[in-house]
Amino acid sequence: MNDRYLRLLGLAGEIHDLASTMGLLEWDQEVMMPPRGVEGRARQRATLAAVLHDRMVDAELGDVLAASAASADVAADPWAAANVREMARQRDRAVKVPRELVAALAREGTLAQQAWVAARQHDDWARFAPHLATLVDLKRREAAAVGYATEPYDALLDEYEPGAKAADLAALFARLRDGLVPVLDALRGAARPPTAALWRGDFAEADQDILGRQVLAAMGYDFAAGRLDVSAHPFTQGFNPGDVRITTRYDVHDLQSGLYANLHEGGHALYELGLPAERAGQPVGAAVSLGIHESQSRLWENLVGRSRPFVSWLAGEMAAVWPERYEAVDPEALYRAANVVSPSLIRIEADEVTYNLHIIVRMEIERALVAGEVQVADLPALWREKVKAYLGLDVPTDREGVLQDIHWSFGLFGYFPTYTLGNLYSAQLFAAARRHLPDLDAQMAAGELGDLLGWLRANVHGPGSLYRADELCVRVTGRELSVDPFLDHVRRKFGEVYGVAL
Amino acid sequence: MNDRYLRLLGLAGEIHDLASTMGLLEWDQEVMMPPRGVEGRARQRATLAAVLHDRMVDAELGDVLAASAASADVAADPWAAANVREMARQRDRAVKVPRELVAALAREGTLAQQAWVAARQHDDWARFAPHLATLVDLKRREAAAVGYATEPYDALLDEYEPGAKAADLAALFARLRDGLVPVLDALRGAARPPTAALWRGDFAEADQDILGRQVLAAMGYDFAAGRLDVSAHPFTQGFNPGDVRITTRYDVHDLQSGLYANLHEGGHALYELGLPAERAGQPVGAAVSLGIHESQSRLWENLVGRSRPFVSWLAGEMAAVWPERYEAVDPEALYRAANVVSPSLIRIEADEVTYNLHIIVRMEIERALVAGEVQVADLPALWREKVKAYLGLDVPTDREGVLQDIHWSFGLFGYFPTYTLGNLYSAQLFAAARRHLPDLDAQMAAGELGDLLGWLRANVHGPGSLYRADELCVRVTGRELSVDPFLDHVRRKFGEVYGVAL
Repeated sequence: MNDRYLRLLGLAGEIHDLASTMGLLEWDQEVMMPPRGVEGRARQRATLAAVLHDRMVDAELGDVLAASAASADVAADPWAAANVREMARQRDRAVKVPRELVAALAREGTLAQQAWVAARQHDDWARFAPHLATLVDLKRREAAAVGYATEPYDALLDEYEPGAKAADLAALFARLRDGLVPVLDALRGAARPPTAALWRGDFAEADQDILGRQVLAAMGYDFAAGRLDVSAHPFTQGFNPGDVRITTRYDVHDLQSGLYANLHEGGHALYELGLPAERAGQPVGAAVSLGIHESQSRLWENLVGRSRPFVSWLAGEMAAVWPERYEAVDPEALYRAANVVSPSLIRIEADEVTYNLHIIVRMEIERALVAGEVQVADLPALWREKVKAYLGLDVPTDREGVLQDIHWSFGLFGYFPTYTLGNLYSAQLFAAARRHLPDLDAQMAAGELGDLLGWLRANVHGPGSLYRADELCVRVTGRELSVDPFLDHVRRKFGEVYGVAL
Repeated sequence: MNDRYLRLLGLAGEIHDLASTMGLLEWDQEVMMPPRGVEGRARQRATLAAVLHDRMVDAELGDVLAASAASADVAADPWAAANVREMARQRDRAVKVPRELVAALAREGTLAQQAWVAARQHDDWARFAPHLATLVDLKRREAAAVGYATEPYDALLDEYEPGAKAADLAALFARLRDGLVPVLDALRGAARPPTAALWRGDFAEADQDILGRQVLAAMGYDFAAGRLDVSAHPFTQGFNPGDVRITTRYDVHDLQSGLYANLHEGGHALYELGLPAERAGQPVGAAVSLGIHESQSRLWENLVGRSRPFVSWLAGEMAAVWPERYEAVDPEALYRAANVVSPSLIRIEADEVTYNLHIIVRMEIERALVAGEVQVADLPALWREKVKAYLGLDVPTDREGVLQDIHWSFGLFGYFPTYTLGNLYSAQLFAAARRHLPDLDAQMAAGELGDLLGWLRANVHGPGSLYRADELCVRVTGRELSVDPFLDHVRRKFGEVYGVAL
């Protein structure tokens, strides 16, 4: 391979080192840092962000990228071509967004986040609204700077789901909504709906930690390449394929909360751990999109974790930790209790069926905001209107409505759709895995998940960013992303659990 | 203050942010990182080290330093002048040492450290010797690049103890040795030497952690600005005055090991926490030298921690945690048991009296090595000769001799003397504190250490690097650093404990 391309890999590797060091500053802040360290940490992050930005827009990187893009050697090697494609995409964005805009977004984001915390706490939309208006304005400027063919929202979406277009997603999500609303109506009429009571009780954190580690070990998570800690909100942080860390949080009265957080974050972590180690530090060695990332967390959380065979295995593990609570429990009853569908106001508490309706509410609102079709002042009423329409619920307070999520206060617009993309990809990928693994149900019932992980590694994790997300989907599942596998899964599972025809 | 000086502060602040980020990469590696993360972490550290070096040698920094050094505003403000002095010292060193030499030291240091681990494990000096010879050669080249007036060792020493000269230290240490050897001889003839048996038993780590936190809280360590964790070797890492972390390690059969590590690291941490917060990120806001740093750890570990009044307070705390073991123990007996003097082969296990003899052995050897007066091949024999002469012991293996310390494998030459400087400074500073705090003994006996900490903050911590270490000593104690306060302390305490005339 020619020298310019090798130099490109060197520069990209340094950018990866600095970005993953930023990741450590963030992980440590959430998990380990003492409270009085916050001011110094903000300075460290600001300085490192500036160093990273300088590296990204550096002229030499532009030169070697251009030379590599013109190289026949590179064109002949799909991994090299993908490296050039991904690095160019990231650099183009960094070059196009003026430094003062980046700084303004960081500054206003910090203020907006503080305002959001207070606004949510006091259910006081007016405290947050002016900050949100500023952020929307800045994000519209960012979209204009990045450029777009059809609508500004595409430019924001592209940061999280490269290549995705708002109009395509809107069409996909409309089909999903049209499929889900009748499901929800039918479930409402069920004669014997399940309840989650079997998952409630008193569960010491230390005992939940034992169960969580057993489940993660069964999934194939390697504790020699990671950690499990507690933080306010569960998250996964991967630095390289030898160090991918998970956090969770435990509710001492509700076992599902921490356990399914472990499965969810464990799924994210297995993806990061399965990225091609020999490409570590290269753009092609990174996660391809947030949608694919979320597909892995949702696959383990819902397709595996809330399946009948896996819950029957779980029941045994739970009985070993809490014999008095679980020894006499019927695994079938536990399975039903893990699959309660109930429209609720809060996205992060939503079930498999209603979750995507929360996302559709958000995407419709933020797409219109970024297009300038609605104003920040309209949001509380618009939120109520859409939640009523899709979930059939009245929103009593903004705290349980438009103020519930942190994302917009960080300036994250275009991020929410990747959650639903993750759900759709998870069902389509899991259906493909099933076709290749005829013994999967028996394996899940035995807590043997190695074949599934092996299939995911070979087909989803191992390619890294070699293919774009939509291409990967076609290669692995034989067809473009569709709402059908997800709707099939939902209808089959919940029709049976609720005893209704779907 | 003029613009150039303000720009200097801005650049220095960014260098501090990057250096403290490097500190987090190191802390995390020792305390939190999973084992498989080591390769990725090495890359992160190498990349960040290069960024830091580039910042330090950057021409703009040189320009604003030169302009600031010529500024009357700066000269009129001692804090500003100290900032310029310290930044210039660090930058001069970075500019003088060629980048390829820095890279060679990093590369050879990694190899040497791996070889040292194996050599020590197998008691096989030959595995380490060629690596050490390479490192000595590189350090001699570094000394030549940095420059020196009298001897190359000064150029290395200066990195850890700015302004210190080998010839001065050698004269000081010779007086110390001449004072200590007769003390050691006299103690050997004691009729009723104390033993440490009272500190031995069975102590669960969780219980030791409780005691350790109580002791640190009594010292004034703020857990909202720090953490206490466990690592293979205790250390302190300060990022800024809001985040200074301690590690320790517990021996379940020996209470002294972890407890006095807590006092030692707690002393380091209190120093970092007491540095001038309004100068955080400025060169003058940093620790002035390793000798002064070590004086604070030793002051709390030995002058406070092994004093009769403090041990009497400790006895009560220990009885609260382990009533069966300690309720009936006489505090005076515990005090004697905390002050056993016994020449031993291993530095890190050495007592207050013999510790400095270990350091003198090391300094004499490394000074001669760097001067080219002895060769690496001579070291095992030379080590045996000096340990026999100063400690009266035969060294049975290199593992218990020349291979015991990790420092040389990192390329740390000129570092060891700062340990003895710390011991000397600690005694001289503590004697000064005593003169200002007439109730100190009664306070220590009550576990009330606030006045002592207040005095240290005002006199030692608060100035940061405003004065050089030797100037600080004169300002605070009224005289230059001397061996007398330390020897007085040793003679008084151990003469009484051992019942001999010293």
